[in-house]
Amino acid sequence: MAFDRDAGGGPGGTANGPSEAATAPGGTTTTPDDVASEDLVAEGATDGSGSAGWEVLPWLLRWRGLAVDQLRRTESVFALSNGHIGMRGTLDEGEPRGLPGTYLNGFYEEHALPYGESGYGYPEDGQTIVNVTDGKVIRLLVEDEPLDMRYGKAHEHERELDFRAGTLRRRTVWESPTGRRITVRSERLVSLTQRAVAAILYEVETDERVQLVVQSDLLANEPVEHDSDDPRVAAALEDPLVADFAHAAGGRAILAHHARNSELRMAAAMDHELETGDGVRTEISAEGDLARFTAAVDVPAGGKLRLVKYLGYGWSAKRSVPALRAQVEAALAGARQTGWEGLLAEQRRFLDEFWAAADVEVRGDDELQQAVRFALFHVMQAAVRGETRAIPGKGLTGPGYDGHAFWDTEMFVLPVLACTLPEAARDALRWRHSTLDKARERAKVLGQGGAAFPWRSINGAECSAYWPAGTAAFHVSGDVAHAVAQYVSMTGDLAFEREHGAEILVETARLWMSLGHHDQHGGFRIDGVTGPDEYSAVVDNNTYTNLIAQRNLRNAVEACGRHPEVAERLGVTAEDTAAWLKAADGMLVPFDELLGVHEQAEGFTSHAAWHFDRIEPDEYPLMLNYPYFDLYRKQVVKQADLVLAMHVRGDAFTPEQKARNFAYYEARTVRDSSLSAGTQAVLAAEVGALRLAYDYLAEAAFTDLHDLHKNVHNGLHMASLAGAWIGLVAGFGGMRDHDGALSFAPRLPPGLEGLAFRLTFRGTLLAVEVEPGRATYRVLSGDALHTSHHGEEVTVAPGEPVVLSIPDPPEPPEISQPRHRAPKRRTPPGSRS
Amino acid sequence: MAFDRDAGGGPGGTANGPSEAATAPGGTTTTPDDVASEDLVAEGATDGSGSAGWEVLPWLLRWRGLAVDQLRRTESVFALSNGHIGMRGTLDEGEPRGLPGTYLNGFYEEHALPYGESGYGYPEDGQTIVNVTDGKVIRLLVEDEPLDMRYGKAHEHERELDFRAGTLRRRTVWESPTGRRITVRSERLVSLTQRAVAAILYEVETDERVQLVVQSDLLANEPVEHDSDDPRVAAALEDPLVADFAHAAGGRAILAHHARNSELRMAAAMDHELETGDGVRTEISAEGDLARFTAAVDVPAGGKLRLVKYLGYGWSAKRSVPALRAQVEAALAGARQTGWEGLLAEQRRFLDEFWAAADVEVRGDDELQQAVRFALFHVMQAAVRGETRAIPGKGLTGPGYDGHAFWDTEMFVLPVLACTLPEAARDALRWRHSTLDKARERAKVLGQGGAAFPWRSINGAECSAYWPAGTAAFHVSGDVAHAVAQYVSMTGDLAFEREHGAEILVETARLWMSLGHHDQHGGFRIDGVTGPDEYSAVVDNNTYTNLIAQRNLRNAVEACGRHPEVAERLGVTAEDTAAWLKAADGMLVPFDELLGVHEQAEGFTSHAAWHFDRIEPDEYPLMLNYPYFDLYRKQVVKQADLVLAMHVRGDAFTPEQKARNFAYYEARTVRDSSLSAGTQAVLAAEVGALRLAYDYLAEAAFTDLHDLHKNVHNGLHMASLAGAWIGLVAGFGGMRDHDGALSFAPRLPPGLEGLAFRLTFRGTLLAVEVEPGRATYRVLSGDALHTSHHGEEVTVAPGEPVVLSIPDPPEPPEISQPRHRAPKRRTPPGSRS
Repeated sequence: MAFDRDAGGGPGGTANGPSEAATAPGGTTTTPDDVASEDLVAEGATDGSGSAGWEVLPWLLRWRGLAVDQLRRTESVFALSNGHIGMRGTLDEGEPRGLPGTYLNGFYEEHALPYGESGYGYPEDGQTIVNVTDGKVIRLLVEDEPLDMRYGKAHEHERELDFRAGTLRRRTVWESPTGRRITVRSERLVSLTQRAVAAILYEVETDERVQLVVQSDLLANEPVEHDSDDPRVAAALEDPLVADFAHAAGGRAILAHHARNSELRMAAAMDHELETGDGVRTEISAEGDLARFTAAVDVPAGGKLRLVKYLGYGWSAKRSVPALRAQVEAALAGARQTGWEGLLAEQRRFLDEFWAAADVEVRGDDELQQAVRFALFHVMQAAVRGETRAIPGKGLTGPGYDGHAFWDTEMFVLPVLACTLPEAARDALRWRHSTLDKARERAKVLGQGGAAFPWRSINGAECSAYWPAGTAAFHVSGDVAHAVAQYVSMTGDLAFEREHGAEILVETARLWMSLGHHDQHGGFRIDGVTGPDEYSAVVDNNTYTNLIAQRNLRNAVEACGRHPEVAERLGVTAEDTAAWLKAADGMLVPFDELLGVHEQAEGFTSHAAWHFDRIEPDEYPLMLNYPYFDLYRKQVVKQADLVLAMHVRGDAFTPEQKARNFAYYEARTVRDSSLSAGTQAVLAAEVGALRLAYDYLAEAAFTDLHDLHKNVHNGLHMASLAGAWIGLVAGFGGMRDHDGALSFAPRLPPGLEGLAFRLTFRGTLLAVEVEPGRATYRVLSGDALHTSHHGEEVTVAPGEPVVLSIPDPPEPPEISQPRHRAPKRRTPPGSRS
Repeated sequence: MAFDRDAGGGPGGTANGPSEAATAPGGTTTTPDDVASEDLVAEGATDGSGSAGWEVLPWLLRWRGLAVDQLRRTESVFALSNGHIGMRGTLDEGEPRGLPGTYLNGFYEEHALPYGESGYGYPEDGQTIVNVTDGKVIRLLVEDEPLDMRYGKAHEHERELDFRAGTLRRRTVWESPTGRRITVRSERLVSLTQRAVAAILYEVETDERVQLVVQSDLLANEPVEHDSDDPRVAAALEDPLVADFAHAAGGRAILAHHARNSELRMAAAMDHELETGDGVRTEISAEGDLARFTAAVDVPAGGKLRLVKYLGYGWSAKRSVPALRAQVEAALAGARQTGWEGLLAEQRRFLDEFWAAADVEVRGDDELQQAVRFALFHVMQAAVRGETRAIPGKGLTGPGYDGHAFWDTEMFVLPVLACTLPEAARDALRWRHSTLDKARERAKVLGQGGAAFPWRSINGAECSAYWPAGTAAFHVSGDVAHAVAQYVSMTGDLAFEREHGAEILVETARLWMSLGHHDQHGGFRIDGVTGPDEYSAVVDNNTYTNLIAQRNLRNAVEACGRHPEVAERLGVTAEDTAAWLKAADGMLVPFDELLGVHEQAEGFTSHAAWHFDRIEPDEYPLMLNYPYFDLYRKQVVKQADLVLAMHVRGDAFTPEQKARNFAYYEARTVRDSSLSAGTQAVLAAEVGALRLAYDYLAEAAFTDLHDLHKNVHNGLHMASLAGAWIGLVAGFGGMRDHDGALSFAPRLPPGLEGLAFRLTFRGTLLAVEVEPGRATYRVLSGDALHTSHHGEEVTVAPGEPVVLSIPDPPEPPEISQPRHRAPKRRTPPGSRS
C-alpha cells in the first residue's frame, strides 16, 4: 500500500477525538501498563491505550509513565531533529523500544523496484531511508542488573519535549528487581546551531552506595522490523551498512560505514565527559558495527554519576573515509569546545528567536495551543539545518514513506516556513534546484520538455513504482514552482530567484508547454495527468493542475522579465514567453453548467456517485477496502483537490463559486489522507462555516498527537502539522498571498477567545491579533507594510498598531459530509491561562 | 513488458514483407548456416536469416536445411498440439535446440506477483505455463558418435508440417565426423483423436554396417531460458517439477511429478516398439526426472532401425499419483492397440473431415493459400481437444504470455471455430463457464455485481499485475458474452445456451449494470474502463466496450426469454431485464460532432496528436520507446478498437460513418499489436479500400511465418492466425452475423483470382466461391439456408447453387497511415496452380 499515503485508520467519526484525549492527571497515575510481558509492571505507567496520554502545557509535551505498546508512537512524537540529523525518541537504554531510528537527511539505501509487468520509463531503483549508526544508546547496570523498564519497578517515569529548550528530557525513579533504587535523568538534544552535532546529558543518582556500569554505544545495523511486505525492500535493509573503519581511544570512538548498494558513506563519532565523585574505571573499544565506552563507578549514597555524550555525524557520496572521519571529529571538537551548557544555551537562543518570529497563540483552547506549538516545533526541526536536502514527508522522525519527500513539502510545509523561517524554505527550494538535472532527465524519458520533479524521492530521482498515482501527478512540478514564487514574494529574495528560482520556473513552464496543447477551440488542455486527490488518476484537465500550471506559466514570464540575463542563459525567447502567456490565458478550467460547480477534472461530475450510504465506519480508509479501479471512476475524493485549488488559486474563483463548490465537494470528500483537513479548514472559514473550520483545524492539529491515522509510529505527518498552522493563519486569519499581495480576512469561530500569529513579509515582522469583533495589526520590526483586511487596503507602520473591526461572516451554504465522515465537533476542554 | 502483447519489432514498413520471403528452391540450397559455432557447418542448410525459409506448397510447410539461430522460431511453427498436449517442434535428438517445450493445457506453476506499491484487490498469484516432462527426445549414437547436427555434415535435412496428415516429418542425411553416413526419418504426431496420446516414428537407415544406440527419454525439469526479467518468475520455474513416482519395465516407463507451488500433478508415460533386423539389446530405467529406454543394435549395410515411441500424458489437480499412473498407462494401451499406422489413419480421417468443412481456397496467391491453411491448422490444433480448458493466446506452441488465455480467444479464435469446428468453440466457452465462480469472486473484490472474467489467466483467476491495462479491460466479459451469443447463433445449440451460455450472459449483464450508471440526461455511462486499444487506459465510455455491453444486455434478455427456468434459477426478475434493456437503449456512444467521427472513448478526439512526423521506424513498437503515460493521453492507437467495434457491432454504424471513422483512425493506428491487421482488413474491404484490405490480410496471415513481430520464438499468435481467416471471410467474403443474421458482401481485391470458403451455419455446410464479378453459394450438406448477398435476401437450397453478381465497391475515403506504418503492399509472387 506504499503509494497510498496514510494507509492507517482514517480520521473522522471513528477516530479518538479530543474529547477522549483526557489530560493525564499530575503524575500519580497508577493504571498498569497493558504490555503483554509477564514481568514488569512499571508502576506509575500511564495507560497508553487511548490517543491521549499527553499533559496539556503551553510549551512542553509531557508523557508520564511507560506504555510499552505506545513506544513506537511516542518515539515519533519525541523525535529530535535539525533537518540534518534525526533521532527518534527511544529510551536511552535502547530497550524496550518500538522502532529505533537515527537518520541522516539524504542518506539512503537503494533497491530494485519490482514490477509484475514492467514498462518503458519505469524507475528501476527505489531509495529507502537507512537507520544509521545509533549514538543514542546509553545502557546502565545497577549492581549487575541492567536498567530495563520492563523489569523491576518504575516509581516515577516521565519524558517531556521542551519547545523552548529544544531538548527531550527524561526522569525515571527505578527500583531494580533486587530493590536498588536509582533516579535517572537525561536530556538529549540535536543541535539547531551545530549541524553535525547531537549531545546527551545522562545522570544517575542513588540513595545508597551502588556500583554502576555505564555503557555508551555507537551501534550500526540494529535489527529493525519493517512494515513493507516487499521482500526486496526488506532484503535491502537487512544490515544495510558495511563497516569501513573503526577506531577508539580515550573517551572517543568512531565508526565509518557505507550503504551496501547506494555506496553512500557515513561516519559517526562519540566523545564523553564523565563526572563522578569516586574511583572510576573506563574503557573504550570499536569494531565493525559497535563502538563502546564503558565506565564502572562506585557511587556513594547520595552520590551522582554524570555523563555527557557528544555525537558527531556526517555522510557523503564523494568524500573518502578519512575525510569523513576528519569531519565528524571536527564536529566533536566543536561540540566539546561549546560544552553541554553552551549547546543548551545556543539551543535556547535559537528557539527564542524562532518563537519571537513564529509563535501562534490560541486563546480558549489550551490543548490546541500546545498542538500548534508542537506542530511548529517539528516543522522547524524538519527543516532548519536541512540545507540543500529534501524535507521528507515524515521529516526525520521515522521510516514512513521510505523517508521520501513529496509535494506536501512545497504546498504545506514551505508556506509555513516562508512566513516563519524563510532561510529554511529557501534551502529546501535549493534542494529542488540541485535536482534539476534529474528532473530534466525524467521529463525527457517521459517524452516531455523542461523538468519533471518526482512524486517521491530522496535524491531527486523518481522512486514511484505505480505511475498513475505517482509520476503522472505532474502538479508536483507546478507545486515546486508555486513554492518558489511564494518564497520570493514573501521574502523579496531576488538573489535566490536569479540564482535558483527563475530556472525552476522556466523549466516547469516548459514542462506544461509540452504536457498541454491547444485544442480545436484554442483552449489549453492538460490531459492524462493525476491531480492531488489520490482517489482519481490519469484524468483530463484537473482543475488544480491547470490552475497551478497557469500561475506557473505567468510566474515564469514575470521572472524572465525580472532576470533577462537568466532568461537568455536558459534560451528563453520572446516567442516562448508569448506562448506561455497564451497557454495561461487559454487554460481550460472545467465547469459543470448544469450543476453550477467546477469539476475536479473533466467529466468528474458525470461520474457515478459513491455508495456512501452503504459504507460502514470500519471500511475507511476506502483504499484498504475498495480497488483503485472503482475509486478512480466515481465521485469520491480522498483529499482536498478542487478545494486546495480554491485556497492557493482563490483568485480564480468568485466567492459564490467557492461556497457552491465547497458544499459540493464536502459531500464527496472522505479525508482518507492527512493532507486534507487543514485545507478544508481554510475554505470552510472562507465560506463562513466557522465551526466546521474549527473542527477541521483540530483534526489537522491532532493528527499526530491523537494518532488519528493510526500510523504515527512510522513518523509524524509534516504536512498535517503544517496544516495546523495553515488552518489557523489562512483559515481564521484569512491570510492569502495571491499574486504576491498579502491580505487578511480574520474571523474567530465560536469557542475561541483569541488568536495571535506572527509572520515575516519582505523583512517586516508582522503580528496579527484576532479577538472577537476586531483584529489588530502590528509591525514588530522592519518597515511599514501594505496589506488588506477583509478587502480593505491598509498600511501598518512600525509603532502604529492598526485595529480594524471584523465584518460578519457570510451565510455558509448547506454543507454535509459523507456518512460517518463528518469531522469530530471541536469543543475546547477549557482554558487554564 | 509482460502486459504488452507483441513487444517485439512491429509489422509495417520495417518488417520483412513477402517480397523478401523468397521461396527456397527445390532442395539443393547450399548456403551455409550462419550459426556462431566453429564446428559444423551442416551442408545443405538454408540461410535462415530472412523471414522466409519456407517452401510454398498448398498443403505442406517445409523448411530445408538447419538454421540453428532460427530454431526457436521453427520450433513454434512446427509445434504439434491437440489442445490438450502441446509439443514444440524441437529436433528428435533434443539438441541443438531453441526453446524446448512440452505443455499440458491447464498445467501451470504459481508464483507471487511482485508489486513495488501494492493495492487492494491486486491479484497475489501469477500462473505460468510449465514445460512438463519431455517425451519427444530420441537420441542416436552412431558408433559412439552422438547425432548432433552442429557436428559432422548434414547432406540433406528437411522438416515438413503436413496439414492433411497432421504430422511433423523430418528427413536427415547425416555424415558423422568420422564419416559414417546415415539417413534418419521421423514422423511425429499429437493425436487429434486420442487426447492423451502422442507418438513418434523414428527410422534410421545406413549403407554400411554400424552399431546404433538409440536412447528414448522422458525428461523432466529440462533447463529452459526465460525471457522474463522478473527473478521471481524465473525462480518459480527453475525445476518447477517435484518427482513423485518413477517406474520402468520392458519397453515402458512412467514418471509422475507435481508442480512445486501450484501442487498440480502430472504423469508422462512412454512405450516402445522396436523393429530391427539383427541382434538387439535393450534396457530401461526410470528415476526422478529421467526415464530412458536404450536399444543397442548392430545394423547391417542397407539395414534399418525402426522405433515407434508412444507417449501418454495426464494431469490433475485432484487425482492421486496411482490414478494418474493408471490414466497414462491406459492412454498408452489404447495407443498401442491402435498402433502407429492406426494413429496415422485416424489423424488423416479427422483432418479430411475438418478440411471438408473448413478449407479456404485462395487463387492467385499461393503463398497466402499456404499461410491460410497453416493458420487454420494451428487454430484447429490449439482448440480441438482442449475440452473445458482455455485456448491460450499462443495455443500450446510456446511459453509466450506465460501460457495465458486472453480475450483474443473469444473475439478472434472462436469466431473461426464457431464456423469451422463448433464443438471446439463450445468447449472453450464451457471453460469460461467453469470459471464463473472465480469471475464472480473477482467482480465482488472489484466492488461489482455479476462476473468479471480475467484479463489473463490459465485457471480462471486474474493474473494481471497492472490493472489499468488488465483488469480494467472489462470488455473481456462482454467479449465472452459476445462469443456465447455468436456460437449459439451460428449453431442453434440451445442446449448449450441453457446449460452454460445463459448464465454467462446473465452474469456479464449484471456486471455492466454495476459498472455503468445513468447520468443526469438518462444516458448510460461506463466510466473508468480500458478498451481493446492498449495505448489507452481507464477511459470513460469506450465505444467498443459500450457497444459490446449493449449487445450483451440485449442478448441476456433474449436468452432469459428463451430459458425462463434458467432466469428463475439465477434470480433474474422482470425488473432486471427491463433495467437491462433501458441501459442498452440509453448506452452512450461518444461522437465528435465537429469532426463527424465517433470517439474511441469520451474525449479522445480532443487529445493531442501523436508526433508521428518525428518518429523513426526503429521507434516502433512505441511502448518500447515511449512511456504509457504519454501514449495513453494522446491520439495514438495500438490496435483496432473503434474499428473492431465497427466490425463486430457494424449494425451500430452507418456506411458513411464507417468510412469516415475508418479514415480517421487509420491515420492514428500504428499496429504495434498482432490483434489489429485482420480487423483492419475487414473494415478496409467494407469501405471499398480493397487493395489496402489485401495488404492487411497478408500482414495478419504472415505474422508468424514471416515473424513480423520478431517474437514468434515464444509461440504463434493464435489471434493473428485466426485474423487471416477473418480477413478473408469477413473481409473479402463480407460475412457478418449481426444479431444472428448471416450475411455476405463478397468482393475480390485486384490481384486475387478467386476465393472459396466453407462454413457451417446451424448444421448447414455452406460453400461460398468468389470470383471476379460474381459469387456462388452452395449448400454442401444440410438444409436450405437464408442469408443475404450485398443486402439482397437470398435462400440457398441443397443442390441449387445460387450465383449472384457482385456490385462495384463503394468509393473509399482518403486513407493514410502514420508515417512508416503503411502496411506492405501485397503483390502475390504468382500462382503455380
